[in-house]
Order: sequence, then C-alpha cells, then structure tokens
Amino acid sequence: MHFKIGSQLFADALKKVEKVVNSKHNIPILQGIFLKVTEQEIICIGSDSTESFRYHIPVGEHVHVITPGTTVLPKQIIDITKKLKKDLELQLRDCNLTIKYGKKSEFNLNTFDPEEYPRLPKFDIDSPTLTLKGTDFNSLVKKTAFAASDSEIRPLLQGVHLITENNCMKWVCTDSHRLSQVTTKIDHNNPIKLVIPAKSLDRLVKTFNLQEDVRVYCESDNQVIFKNGNLFFYSRLLEGNYPDTSRLIPNDFKAEMKINRKELLEGLDRISGLANGVDGGSGVVKLHVNGVATITTHQSQIGKGIEAIEYEELTGEDDFTISFAANYMIDALKAIDDDVVNFKYQGNARPFLITPTSSEFEETQLILPVRTM
Amino acid sequence: MHFKIGSQLFADALKKVEKVVNSKHNIPILQGIFLKVTEQEIICIGSDSTESFRYHIPVGEHVHVITPGTTVLPKQIIDITKKLKKDLELQLRDCNLTIKYGKKSEFNLNTFDPEEYPRLPKFDIDSPTLTLKGTDFNSLVKKTAFAASDSEIRPLLQGVHLITENNCMKWVCTDSHRLSQVTTKIDHNNPIKLVIPAKSLDRLVKTFNLQEDVRVYCESDNQVIFKNGNLFFYSRLLEGNYPDTSRLIPNDFKAEMKINRKELLEGLDRISGLANGVDGGSGVVKLHVNGVATITTHQSQIGKGIEAIEYEELTGEDDFTISFAANYMIDALKAIDDDVVNFKYQGNARPFLITPTSSEFEETQLILPVRTM
Repeated sequence: MHFKIGSQLFADALKKVEKVVNSKHNIPILQGIFLKVTEQEIICIGSDSTESFRYHIPVGEHVHVITPGTTVLPKQIIDITKKLKKDLELQLRDCNLTIKYGKKSEFNLNTFDPEEYPRLPKFDIDSPTLTLKGTDFNSLVKKTAFAASDSEIRPLLQGVHLITENNCMKWVCTDSHRLSQVTTKIDHNNPIKLVIPAKSLDRLVKTFNLQEDVRVYCESDNQVIFKNGNLFFYSRLLEGNYPDTSRLIPNDFKAEMKINRKELLEGLDRISGLANGVDGGSGVVKLHVNGVATITTHQSQIGKGIEAIEYEELTGEDDFTISFAANYMIDALKAIDDDVVNFKYQGNARPFLITPTSSEFEETQLILPVRTM
Repeated sequence: MHFKIGSQLFADALKKVEKVVNSKHNIPILQGIFLKVTEQEIICIGSDSTESFRYHIPVGEHVHVITPGTTVLPKQIIDITKKLKKDLELQLRDCNLTIKYGKKSEFNLNTFDPEEYPRLPKFDIDSPTLTLKGTDFNSLVKKTAFAASDSEIRPLLQGVHLITENNCMKWVCTDSHRLSQVTTKIDHNNPIKLVIPAKSLDRLVKTFNLQEDVRVYCESDNQVIFKNGNLFFYSRLLEGNYPDTSRLIPNDFKAEMKINRKELLEGLDRISGLANGVDGGSGVVKLHVNGVATITTHQSQIGKGIEAIEYEELTGEDDFTISFAANYMIDALKAIDDDVVNFKYQGNARPFLITPTSSEFEETQLILPVRTM
C-alpha cells in the first residue's frame, strides 16, 4: 500500500468513521481504523461491532494511489492527521505504516492484520428498501427519537419502530410514559418492520449531509444500512416484538385547545427550573385551563411559579386541570415545527395529545399525565 | 426590599457571582445568593466560604429602588432571571420574594435569613496594596498558574507565590517538576509574600474585564481581595512556607539554542499524541540537537515519530540529547509570547530553561528532564 492524500481530506474522512470507534474496546483491532486502498478509491471503516461507518474517498486531485493494499491503523493516525496541514505520503511495509509530511515529520505506526478485522455484511447498493430526502430523514428522527427510553430494562424501548405498509411509512417511539408518532406517504409497497436504536439515528442526523438523500437497506433481520453520499452506516437492529402502539392514540377528546407553541414553550422553560427544584424535584407542573392557560409549580422547599398563557381557541370543556412532567411537554413542543399547536384533552387521568395545526407530516405527541393530590 | 431591574443586567450580575456558588454546599445558605439593596446600589454576593464574588450594580436607567433591604435568594433565581427578557419587579414580604414579569409570569421564592450569611472581611478600598493593568494581570497569571500542582499532597504547590520587594514583583509557580517565574518592576516598596490558589487566579482571568485595572488588597495573612471595576473577589491564601525557589534557576549553561517557538510547538503537538500513547504512555519525548533539533518518541505498542526543526542559532555544545515530558514543554511554549525562544541546556540530567528572546517581563520556564535508558 502506497498513496498520497491531502491531510484535510484524510482527516475529514477519518473523523466521519471514528465516531463509533471506542479506544477502549475489548477487541483491540476495533480500536483501529480499517483502510483499503484500490486503484479507484480509499475506503475507511470504523466499527464498535454493533455500529460501523464506512467512507469512500474517490481518487482525484489530492488523492493519488501508487500501490493498492489493505491495513488496519491504530487510532493515533487520527490525531496525527488532524495536526498535519499539507499533503501526506503513506506507505505500508510489512506491518509498519510510514507517514511522511514534507521534510519535517515522519511517523511509523504498527498496524493490525486486516484479515482479522470483522467483515461488514454485503448488500445490493442499487436496491435500497427506502429512499428519503435528507431533510425528511432529519425531521422524522427529530420528531421521534427523543421519546426513546434510556433504560436498559426494556432495551426495545431504546429504539424507534419503523413500519411501512400500504404506501405509508410510520415512525413510532415510546418510553412508556410518552409516545411520538409520525406518518407519511411513500412510493413503496414492501412491508417492513424494524426497531432502530434511537442513539444511532441521533448520530446519523449529526453526521449525514442532510442536503443529500438517505437510502435505507433492510436486507437482513438484524442489520440496517444507511447510505448518504459516500458515507455508509451499519447498525444492528433491536430484536423482539415492539409493543403494539396502534390503539394507544385516542380519537375522542373532551376539549381541544389551540395555543401558541413558542409562548407555551417559553413559559414551561422558565417554570421548569423551579419544578425540577432541588435534588429529587419531580419536574411536574400543573396546567389549569379556565379562560387562560395557567401553568403552576409548587416546590415546598424553594417556592412557587405561575405562568399565564392566552390560548387562541378552545372547544369542549372550558375548565380543567392536568399535571405532567414539564420536560416531556418541552421535548414534544420542540419536536413540532408549527407556530400553533393543538392540545387535546381526554380527562385528567388519561393521556393527552399535542399535534401541529398544519404540518408536512401526520404527527402526534402523546404524554401520560401525572396523578397529583 | 422592593426594586425594579432590567432582566439582562440582573442576570449578568448573578452570572458573575454564581461562579463560586456550589449548589450542593453543605452549608445550605451558601447555596444561595446574598442580595443587599440600598438607595444607591444593589450588591450581589456568591460564596463557597473559601472564595467569594461581590458585584455592585449602581442605581440607574434600568435599576430603580423603591425600598432598601437585604435577603439571601435560592439559586433558582439565576435560572429564572436568565430566561426572562424584560424588566423585572422584585419584592420581599417576610421570607418570600415575589418576582413579577409583565402579566405573564410570577414567581414566589422562599428566602434564607440574611443574618446567617457569612460576613466578608472589611478592607480599605482606597488603599490597594498593588494596582496592575488588567492586561498585565492576565499575562502574569497565564505565564505562571499553569505550572501549579493538581495534587492535594502538597497543597502549597497548588498556589502561585507572589513576592514584592525592592520595587520588584515576582510571580513563581512550581509543581516540583517544572517552575515558571516572571519578574517585573513596580512602584511599590512594601514587601509582601502571598501564596494565591492558582485555580482562583485562572477563574479571575476568565471573569475580569481585562481592559480595566486590577487592584489587589493584602490586609490580612489569610485573605487576598481583588477589585476589577464593580466586581470584587475574595480568596483565602494558602498557608505555610512556600519552597525557596530563588536558587533553583541556573546561570551557567553548556549550550544555548535559539529556535522558532511556533515550529517547535507544532512539532511537539503532533508527536505528543503518539508519546502519550495508549493508557499509561509516559508522554516523554527525546530532543537530539546535532545540526538540527530532532524530537522523537518511540512507543513500542504503537510506533514511532520524528520531528525535525531547524534552529536559528546554537552556541556551546553542538551535539546533545535530553528527554522530557512533551506536555510540560508545550505548556511552557504556550505561556511565552515571543516568536523565538532560548533553549538553555545544562546537561542531560539537569533542568533546562526556556526563555523569550525579547519580552516585557523577565520570564523563565524551567523544566526537569526525564532520565531514560
């Protein structure tokens, strides 16, 4: 293996794939970066065995391949490359990679045997199961993944449930206290059901170029592959039967209130600091609707807070009270893009909904209330 | 107590004094912010009992006092004030402070008894022991405080030793492996000797407005007070006899090398990632001077690195080798502002010096070498 590459280009590629590399992984070779050099391109792979990134750098102006080859580099390559500023020359001899940088610097790194690096699953690149616009992918993740559970107790609830059937795609996510669901039409009729780790999706939104399409490949039961430009991401799927959420979203409501999303969010944000209180504060606030929407919290140790927000329209019951975790409501309101939201009330012991009044997607944020005295 | 204040102004004042407030302090009242309102000004104090900030807001356009008074507010006041955007009205009734914000928000906070808040020591504001330009104060701290120890074993070494005598001020700091010393002339003849916690100085550099003077008051043996505009900082001093460092800095050298600071720093920076290696890497590099200055590291597990830097001038011995911790050298080079530094060599088992070739201050960075095989 022998090639020349612009340091910035190489550093950017390594930065993309290193996101999943754990420098303390108990399989030493996974602490490194896999590198495959061909006549056409340089392929970099980083993996922690459950998530892997693969990035392709095509041969071009700042990428010149002299001899193809394959190796696995120690993670120090990332740090060294970041700090170099011009063209690099990399050459592998036996198990030793030499990096030359002008006349000033020369590094020799011990490499790992590439034969020992786990193989990524093969798939048919020309047959994606789904193709989404980058911006839509971003919206779908941001509107659902936050509702996933952090807890290891029910691992399935750490995922987002993606279902397609009858030209319809549904993303659902719940931690059992709240639920987010977005539905959109697609040109696609193969029914699929996947549970994708929410953390993987969050990572992709931060890493992908959202101006480009996101292709999704679901060729196996335990793996999903995403492609965005020259970057590929492989994630294991969460296995098991995701809870049936299809009957959880009610249709009948005792009251519906249209309210300004930003005003409600700002009021909740101010009061939540007090509601979270000292250690062990519950973060619970009370909403009382009666001519105006009043949010209150009372923490005996610290004090109390009142926020009054004028709603735009109210139908049904005109005097009711419901308590809930302020942070759940804040998350739900942040996920919605619309200026005005619908607050749909079923009774103070039953889940309530927040929905946009107009949206590209069919979107529902459901929150369970908290019983208070 | 009853006053009106612009929320931004109040939030900025609280932000300054909260830096030392520990929300888990075992003395509950120190978890709060002391507030004293007079006809002329509003005084805010935050303290963790060893460090305290006091900030004065003069009455003016956005500060209107209706009734003076004194209280201690819970720390939630900070969070609430940050999130409010216009004028606030604050009123104390019994032990309860009401914060009104337009028609929308009202907070009631339980307060602490201000009689229980520790008193700050009195001092004569018109008689500072020292007055420094803000930019000089910044330089003196940045050139010395980094060399302090983190270890609790010798608490005195967590401080910077400040000595004035014979119209000369000296700042010295050592962790016993390296030493930084800066000397400058002053118009002042009272001899003082203080050991100020390096962390307090770092905090001040980040908090003070360095365009304004810094006044230093040393009226007691265990306390130092700094004043910068309307902001006061009180710090305990470290007690005990700071090691005598006056004879540690040598005058005779076997070799002196003038070398470009930035090139040396960049070379060390690139190689240090490798030198720090995997867990337990020593961070030690070797400097070999022989026609060119070559820095090398060899980590058997990962590989090796070489950086060659051309020096500008060399006098004395022209072939020598010395090993040292790369990070100590990086810290020392970052502290110096000059483009070219002097590397002063006494032998490979003796401390070496880094000094600027031209500087406003008389400045020395001393580093102990590491013995290697």
